Amino acid sequence: MVEAERATLFTDNRYTVQAKDEVCGARVEITGKPGLVAAGMRLASLRGRVRAGFAPEQLTMGQWEAVGKAAGKRVRWTAVKGAVESLRGVKDDGEIAVMREAAILAGRVWESVLKLVKPGVTEIELAAEIEYGMRMGGATGPAFDTIVASGPRAALPHGRASAKPLEKNELVVFDLGAILRGYCSDITRTVYVGRAPRKIKRWYAAVLEAQEAARAAVKPGVTAGEVDAAARGVLDSRGLGRRFTHSTGHGLGIEVHEAPRLGRGVESRLATGNVVTIEPGVYIEGTGGIRIEDDIWVRAGGAETLSQARRELLEL
Amino acid sequence: MVEAERATLFTDNRYTVQAKDEVCGARVEITGKPGLVAAGMRLASLRGRVRAGFAPEQLTMGQWEAVGKAAGKRVRWTAVKGAVESLRGVKDDGEIAVMREAAILAGRVWESVLKLVKPGVTEIELAAEIEYGMRMGGATGPAFDTIVASGPRAALPHGRASAKPLEKNELVVFDLGAILRGYCSDITRTVYVGRAPRKIKRWYAAVLEAQEAARAAVKPGVTAGEVDAAARGVLDSRGLGRRFTHSTGHGLGIEVHEAPRLGRGVESRLATGNVVTIEPGVYIEGTGGIRIEDDIWVRAGGAETLSQARRELLEL
Repeated sequence: MVEAERATLFTDNRYTVQAKDEVCGARVEITGKPGLVAAGMRLASLRGRVRAGFAPEQLTMGQWEAVGKAAGKRVRWTAVKGAVESLRGVKDDGEIAVMREAAILAGRVWESVLKLVKPGVTEIELAAEIEYGMRMGGATGPAFDTIVASGPRAALPHGRASAKPLEKNELVVFDLGAILRGYCSDITRTVYVGRAPRKIKRWYAAVLEAQEAARAAVKPGVTAGEVDAAARGVLDSRGLGRRFTHSTGHGLGIEVHEAPRLGRGVESRLATGNVVTIEPGVYIEGTGGIRIEDDIWVRAGGAETLSQARRELLEL
Repeated sequence: MVEAERATLFTDNRYTVQAKDEVCGARVEITGKPGLVAAGMRLASLRGRVRAGFAPEQLTMGQWEAVGKAAGKRVRWTAVKGAVESLRGVKDDGEIAVMREAAILAGRVWESVLKLVKPGVTEIELAAEIEYGMRMGGATGPAFDTIVASGPRAALPHGRASAKPLEKNELVVFDLGAILRGYCSDITRTVYVGRAPRKIKRWYAAVLEAQEAARAAVKPGVTAGEVDAAARGVLDSRGLGRRFTHSTGHGLGIEVHEAPRLGRGVESRLATGNVVTIEPGVYIEGTGGIRIEDDIWVRAGGAETLSQARRELLEL
């Protein structure tokens, strides 16, 4: 609960020691009640007219009922949409340093499992190796369920790793990220098992060109829709626009999906300190898919790609 | 959206193929709008008086606004608290079979990392090995951030694995679980690095006795509070009641924390088909903690412990 003069974290005695260790910038109040009820009672105890804002993206209807009942009828509530998220959207140098480390870790771990990519290894085995590598590299965990999607499964933009073994002459999409000291990375690479046919090489080149065009379009002041259009324009010109079925990217930070969404026509503008993903892809049902994703820091005068793994088509 | 005659999953074209593969018992509707907006528009299109229930624990205030606006003013809304969760709370035999497998997997993986427990290995390394083992055993991921908490950190009931190396003469608490085919397991074991002093052995024996008493108390019709009291009574009688700072357990299933909470005075009754954790613990700030947790199936006439790892104090 943030007041003009102070901030308070309400928690219970399971977290007494951890809160003492980890919380800074806020008082810690150990309470026997649910945290939201304690916060509501604090509101009820304030004098004068009380106005309280809440984050509607976070608060459930059930929590709302609990805090509202504890606060009583005297409190006036206002939904403050995106307030916390937009503060979080602008990263300082310390945050960028951690996010760079998280992005590099993901790329390094992906490169380290390439030697295992061959017919017979299962998607789950590759995902397990990736998550193990990120953990050993200091991550507290994966930023999301690691995607390893091969062959026709690569046509699923969000297909999690399955027990399917890799086969010869298949595309394999890896989409992975680490949580490092609270911050997420999120990268995607696509490889081919065997020698890629010309059509696959053409698709791959188009996706890579689209990705480079969108990365080049990132700078402070540009709209999210303009960045999306840069990727979409390349794929449209190759006759692949219809195969690019999702947005070009999204904000990244404490959560793996944050504002802004880099989608068609989105008018919000990128600001210095944002970190966004750029991840165009094409998907052919029954055949497979190709996606290439990096994490981009919007900085004064332009942008810098934080993730560093190899981007050319690898035939393994 | 569940109607009297049909159920519909609203999703977008990123999930077309996956929905076709995975959804059963519901129609799939691919929509260009957010799923909740599409559901709201469906409500708006219905004739006559329309009443709709929602799960207040799940729906955020922001989602509520979106679906409510799309549905229009003609729809009457009712919060249906716990409706889905209580349906989920009763597992059928197929679900129990999966949960047993998930529980056994967690125990087996924990036992497999015991050979690595020695001074110098870090908590994170042990957590990485555990998560890797669960993954290779078929889990889609850990059910929660794996806890490996050693020495004074073992006094944190929810202390995640850190870079701290294990030292001689310390307690180490392992709290881990797997998600297997959608269902969670959740077990805790505590070991000692070196030869345990008499005081630690006494505490350990008290926690184990409390855990066994609570497991023996589980059966259909008993209240959650009675199970909690069985554990708490043992620890009270050993002068450790004050050190047992949390509830005795919780429901387990698709989510790692479900109803019912097995806490002091909770009056809801266990029913055949419930699966709950039993996990008493004692915590001494500055010294460490001990917790022992298993997953229990409430079945006709009694209960069965699904998890199987060794429960005696291991001195490693």
